[in-house]
Amino acid sequence: MEKITETEKITGMEKFGGRPVSFDTIDVTDGFWKEKQDLFYNKTIKAVYDRFEETGRFEALKFNWKEGMPNKPHIFWESDVTKWIEGAAYFLQKKRDTELEAKVDELVERMVITQDDNGYLNAYFTVVEPEARFTRRTDHELYCAGHLVEGAIAYEKATGKTAMLQVAIKYIDLIDRVFRIEHSAGYDTPGHEEIELALIKLYDYTGEERYKLLAEYFINTRGTSSRDETYSFTDQEHMQSHLPVRKQVTAEGHSVRALYLYSGMADLALKNKEEDLYNVCKTLFSNIVNKRMYITGGIGSTYLGESFTFDYDLPEYTAYNETCASIALAMFCRRMWLIEPDSIYADCAERALYNTVLSGVSLSGDSFFYKNPLSVNPVRNAFNNSRPKGLQEHLPIMERVKVFDCSCCPPNLLRVVGSIADYMYSTANDVIYAHCYMDASAAVLVHNKEIGLVQKTKYPYEGRIEITTQTEGNYTIALRIPAWAKKGEIIINGEEVSAPVISGYAYCKRFWKDGDTIILNLPMEVKIMEANPKAADLCGRAAITRGPLVYCAESVDNNLELRDVRISRTADYTVKQDKVCNTEVSVIHTKALIREIPDQLYMDETVRRKEIPFKLIPYFTRANRGITEMSTWFLLED
Amino acid sequence: MEKITETEKITGMEKFGGRPVSFDTIDVTDGFWKEKQDLFYNKTIKAVYDRFEETGRFEALKFNWKEGMPNKPHIFWESDVTKWIEGAAYFLQKKRDTELEAKVDELVERMVITQDDNGYLNAYFTVVEPEARFTRRTDHELYCAGHLVEGAIAYEKATGKTAMLQVAIKYIDLIDRVFRIEHSAGYDTPGHEEIELALIKLYDYTGEERYKLLAEYFINTRGTSSRDETYSFTDQEHMQSHLPVRKQVTAEGHSVRALYLYSGMADLALKNKEEDLYNVCKTLFSNIVNKRMYITGGIGSTYLGESFTFDYDLPEYTAYNETCASIALAMFCRRMWLIEPDSIYADCAERALYNTVLSGVSLSGDSFFYKNPLSVNPVRNAFNNSRPKGLQEHLPIMERVKVFDCSCCPPNLLRVVGSIADYMYSTANDVIYAHCYMDASAAVLVHNKEIGLVQKTKYPYEGRIEITTQTEGNYTIALRIPAWAKKGEIIINGEEVSAPVISGYAYCKRFWKDGDTIILNLPMEVKIMEANPKAADLCGRAAITRGPLVYCAESVDNNLELRDVRISRTADYTVKQDKVCNTEVSVIHTKALIREIPDQLYMDETVRRKEIPFKLIPYFTRANRGITEMSTWFLLED
Repeated sequence: MEKITETEKITGMEKFGGRPVSFDTIDVTDGFWKEKQDLFYNKTIKAVYDRFEETGRFEALKFNWKEGMPNKPHIFWESDVTKWIEGAAYFLQKKRDTELEAKVDELVERMVITQDDNGYLNAYFTVVEPEARFTRRTDHELYCAGHLVEGAIAYEKATGKTAMLQVAIKYIDLIDRVFRIEHSAGYDTPGHEEIELALIKLYDYTGEERYKLLAEYFINTRGTSSRDETYSFTDQEHMQSHLPVRKQVTAEGHSVRALYLYSGMADLALKNKEEDLYNVCKTLFSNIVNKRMYITGGIGSTYLGESFTFDYDLPEYTAYNETCASIALAMFCRRMWLIEPDSIYADCAERALYNTVLSGVSLSGDSFFYKNPLSVNPVRNAFNNSRPKGLQEHLPIMERVKVFDCSCCPPNLLRVVGSIADYMYSTANDVIYAHCYMDASAAVLVHNKEIGLVQKTKYPYEGRIEITTQTEGNYTIALRIPAWAKKGEIIINGEEVSAPVISGYAYCKRFWKDGDTIILNLPMEVKIMEANPKAADLCGRAAITRGPLVYCAESVDNNLELRDVRISRTADYTVKQDKVCNTEVSVIHTKALIREIPDQLYMDETVRRKEIPFKLIPYFTRANRGITEMSTWFLLED
Repeated sequence: MEKITETEKITGMEKFGGRPVSFDTIDVTDGFWKEKQDLFYNKTIKAVYDRFEETGRFEALKFNWKEGMPNKPHIFWESDVTKWIEGAAYFLQKKRDTELEAKVDELVERMVITQDDNGYLNAYFTVVEPEARFTRRTDHELYCAGHLVEGAIAYEKATGKTAMLQVAIKYIDLIDRVFRIEHSAGYDTPGHEEIELALIKLYDYTGEERYKLLAEYFINTRGTSSRDETYSFTDQEHMQSHLPVRKQVTAEGHSVRALYLYSGMADLALKNKEEDLYNVCKTLFSNIVNKRMYITGGIGSTYLGESFTFDYDLPEYTAYNETCASIALAMFCRRMWLIEPDSIYADCAERALYNTVLSGVSLSGDSFFYKNPLSVNPVRNAFNNSRPKGLQEHLPIMERVKVFDCSCCPPNLLRVVGSIADYMYSTANDVIYAHCYMDASAAVLVHNKEIGLVQKTKYPYEGRIEITTQTEGNYTIALRIPAWAKKGEIIINGEEVSAPVISGYAYCKRFWKDGDTIILNLPMEVKIMEANPKAADLCGRAAITRGPLVYCAESVDNNLELRDVRISRTADYTVKQDKVCNTEVSVIHTKALIREIPDQLYMDETVRRKEIPFKLIPYFTRANRGITEMSTWFLLED
């Protein structure tokens, strides 16, 4: 494909020109994500609801808990509820379901009833410690308020019912007064970010400038206030308050908080067309993907503070990689590609979504991982579990569970899967950017004209993407060529075309007619990926990927010492459709080498290697078949 | 060398026939250990004394501490003092030093004064919690008593002064009554073993059977008593009390405690010629060396309980490998070779002594490591140190310090270096076993006749050992052929001989004349050692050894990403005498490969490798030149 020339320059590539295309106008019709959405609709919504009901999270909204009763409300329980509402609403928006809607309505009703006259709404700070409202920065009130806003917008869009958004706005108006106008709270910026991006969403939805002002206030004040405490056991880095945000150059602290903040910053940069703030976001993005991100799109190398650590620190067994952190990373990427069309953002979002995010939920849709390590060793976990608490190391669990005490990930998964089509398109001027490929029908607004696009694909298992235009007009379709593909073949109406590729997007500009078809063929090769030599834990090893998917091996498929398996670049890698539990996926078969097991612990000779068949499955399907060893990084034959 | 035939069978190879040859009758005259002993005499004795004085350990013996005063006595401080006395006594025994002796005398005098009329002696349980005497198993009273006994015997042997042993015996007699006879203590067996082996030593020294009985009582009762508590944060494995000792098959719990216990068990097996107990010791030894020991002879893979973990769990950066644990391992080995002459024991003792134990002290003799990891990463430590305590992982420190709060290792090093010649010889019937080689003159009793042996060697840097007999007679000299050597050339009076090798000892039997010389030439090859494929952390990597020494690389010599260095079996390895600080050692030079550093974090192609010069130093000389990256396991070219 050729470089675009100056004269051909396409409008829509300028920075700050992007507009999101919401999943509102996209229906996922088939394929990978349809299967996930069906599973989530049929299983996950209810599974999360039932666990939240059992644990008292919904009951807490009645504000009738008293000392001595079970299920004492927790400071962040509201966020679990409103994230569940948000997720449920995304499904309701696509499909009427009176039973589900009634459940949501009932929860909203509770909030309407229990909200304070002044707008305040948080069970913990009403029934447990009312005197401590807005005094402790570490206590998630504003984080909960942010999720309330996001849930409320989703609910209103899905049902047309205004009650929840009224509650949310009343609360936000209180927060605006207390924090931005009067400075009468005990601190200045939230200890757990999230409200910033929610406020921008509220600004977008209502058009009320003051919500953007409040978001700006929180973002600009962060790292500048002496009243902003942190936990006694952490530093200000934990809450990204070690520096004013515009001075930050490395991703630090709690990874979920960091990525929610960066998402809000990117939102603001876009709204205000603020180059400097975008550059900060870019620097942080670059630090993450080039130095601090697992190949699975996982972030946060340590459980200690659930946080980023230092460049190239990527231990496998103790990787924290919270599901929510990778969701937040995808959210950040989606915002970044609106500011500047560059495929690095969608490449990263896909890595996160197809690997770490989906690893967070079982193939049965009803159990969850919070932590997503790159390798697990059942012997180490069993030994650890056999020890008394005081002698245990912190290790990720090996089987998914139904609910966590801190159960932010399950409803977050609901949100992201329900609105996954948000990741498909954006527009800028007369360009329609196609970022993440999925089988879906979309109506995309270009200069106020609805363009119908039907996408058919078996992505991520096959690299063929077919897009049929349903609306004629003069517009550009910019197809993302992922970095792993290096290039793609583009066939328009049966004819291979050469489209200019700029920053990872192939720009197909023409007068489109109804029924024109574009076929994009991305080469789906098995790739043997090495890590930078500075990544001390990964030296000498390689991971196996195909398209956006990272593969892993489990001992349930390979009865071997997985850490000693030696793969090679020259072996044959055969891709087959196969089932993991009841889910059809592409698995990879190859031959590898393994040493025979000698008696000694140390030997001055290499023991004999034997060739063995070696099977790999997509990382996200790991841990669905009982406790089993798992590894993603294998020794690489030189 | 040929196998020995039945008819030639040598008396002295039967089990339970061994007798130790104490360093009492051996003078280290030159070479590696003479240099260490001189350093310890000139620097270490005083360095440890001064730190103990500064921290109040000696003052505590006056028993005049009161609430509000600094330096509150700690439950194990007596053991620090008596281990220092023991170490100092070993040097005093070889060389009169009135100033040093006066210091020791003064400490002994304090004990004489402060010992209770009933024999009790422990500062903490006299001035802080007198009511808690003998009530808390976890509180090290009996451990301190054991070290008191060992110190007292050493002091009496060195100075002829009886006062300290009188104190010790009075205390032991109290313990014997309270624990073995009356069962009036709050528990039955010590939480921290050590007294068992000390009691056997006391039995050997005094001939009093009841000390052996008490040792037997403690050993046999362990793991059988419901009154034997452990720490609230540990399990009984921590104190080797999960099973009666004769049922134990894996090395569990706190590694120092374990090896002191096993040493006492081996002592008892030898005294009682108890095959079953020896077999338990053998099983435990085998579990350690074949599954749970670092190549440096380090044991205890985790700081969590300073303990053994599970088979093949040998992480590099977080290896605990306490200096004291490897000292205790060498002590256990020395006891085992008395029971059964097999070079596996001395091979293991040497691994421990030349690597982990000596890594415990600086080349300047005045600073110490407690933990001896296999690799260190200054970036990880710096990041960790920059975090607040609540977010820090437990990592070994990177520079030796003058003293620890729990400062057991420095005086333990004094003991082991002062009495290092204990590891040279043993006898059995008319066989003199030569275990560890060093430049020393010995008088060895064979059938009550003193045999003079002069050993000259530059071991461990050179494999030539020359032994000159000074006493004529019909006896056998059994020379250890280390497993790493596979075989040795033996030249007697200029003529190569073929001596039968059994269980790693070459038996040279003849009528020896005064002035006969044996030259043993051990091939000192650089060995590339791989670990068992089950050792997940070491797969794909190799360590470099030469003789008993393990080598490491430091970034101060190699400005590289050490974890990415790829060594090969086929490269040239050049051994040179060179200095690390002011100490002359054999260093190794070779060529290795390293990847160039690309910009990306993950790449689907192997980046270019370049050849680089690569320098290795003995592991024990690590960390003497400032904070620097260090690694012992390198990628191995296939």
